[in-house]
Amino acid sequence: MSKVVGIDRTRGRPRKDPAEYEERRELLIRVGVELLTEKGFVSTGLDEVVKKAGVPKGSFYAYFESKEAFGLVLIDSYAQYFNSKLDKCYLNSSRSPLERISDFMTEARQNLARFDFLRGCLVGNLGQEMAALPGSFRQKIVDVFCGWQAKTESCLREAQKLGEISTDINCEKKAEVFWIGWEGAILRANLERRAGPLDAYTTDFLSSLGP
Amino acid sequence: MSKVVGIDRTRGRPRKDPAEYEERRELLIRVGVELLTEKGFVSTGLDEVVKKAGVPKGSFYAYFESKEAFGLVLIDSYAQYFNSKLDKCYLNSSRSPLERISDFMTEARQNLARFDFLRGCLVGNLGQEMAALPGSFRQKIVDVFCGWQAKTESCLREAQKLGEISTDINCEKKAEVFWIGWEGAILRANLERRAGPLDAYTTDFLSSLGP
Repeated sequence: MSKVVGIDRTRGRPRKDPAEYEERRELLIRVGVELLTEKGFVSTGLDEVVKKAGVPKGSFYAYFESKEAFGLVLIDSYAQYFNSKLDKCYLNSSRSPLERISDFMTEARQNLARFDFLRGCLVGNLGQEMAALPGSFRQKIVDVFCGWQAKTESCLREAQKLGEISTDINCEKKAEVFWIGWEGAILRANLERRAGPLDAYTTDFLSSLGP
Repeated sequence: MSKVVGIDRTRGRPRKDPAEYEERRELLIRVGVELLTEKGFVSTGLDEVVKKAGVPKGSFYAYFESKEAFGLVLIDSYAQYFNSKLDKCYLNSSRSPLERISDFMTEARQNLARFDFLRGCLVGNLGQEMAALPGSFRQKIVDVFCGWQAKTESCLREAQKLGEISTDINCEKKAEVFWIGWEGAILRANLERRAGPLDAYTTDFLSSLGP
């Protein structure tokens, strides 16, 4: 990033270059998502965000109204990023529906391993912090989970239609339980700094599908 | 509690009455466990602990060496309390082993409902905060989970011996997966402020046991 514009104009408006404005805003979001994924909302200070992004401290409020508003944007950004990851797996027509479900878990495991199990799921982490978060976060986080569940549910339905999983399974309930357990598995993997809990959960979940 | 001794002697030793010392220490632990269960470690300030316990602020360090040392004592205290709750269910000879497993979930659900799903599992919460916690917490939290898992495993083995659950089940793995998923269910119940996720998980877990 150019250092030329890095002059600290306390709470001043940033330079009126729309491309640069957008670029910095995107950078703040990227850094925010990273920090939130590692440390949660309460422990993430705006000082750390602007420092890591190389953005003058005072100009943060030119991009976001408040830490709360910033947090809501971060949830949206993460949900969008994650939805496209889910779609990549769940809509992969070169794999059977059951394989797609398994693929997602394998890929997520790789992503978690890449960061040495130091990073979790931003949405799961926020859910855990709920008592200390602005109330506006609750519905947004619930909505994100519902969206992921709906994607899993439709993939399970396809698997069921093709006889890959048992006809006894209630796909809606199973998708809900999948995300409940998967978030629990990420939590344990972060705690233990190893893939073991994800593997144990994956094996158990797949074997619970029948056929 | 008596107000007479409530004089703030900054970092002074508390009055050398062993019973009173012990009583205050216990009170600090009780308040600490409550706050930790609701808010986690990072968000819980020592100021809030001493204020809620009615203990002079400066005397905290006469009871505990540091916030870290306090946290470790809180984990032990919670684990001990929770182990006795588990034993009460899992060793209840008036119920079959499978009923005991179900009883634990029912009872835990009631406890969570009593606090309007505002409180979670202290150990689960700490696991989620791990990135921001002293390293000494990690092994302690893992050990607590292993202890709980061992209790669940032996109850599952008894159920298996009596033909209540399928002989195909690996009781050790199932106990690990139970705690992974159960912590995930508490997380979601706290997020949604309702029992739904616990019920969905309970139904799915029990149906996964066969026979």
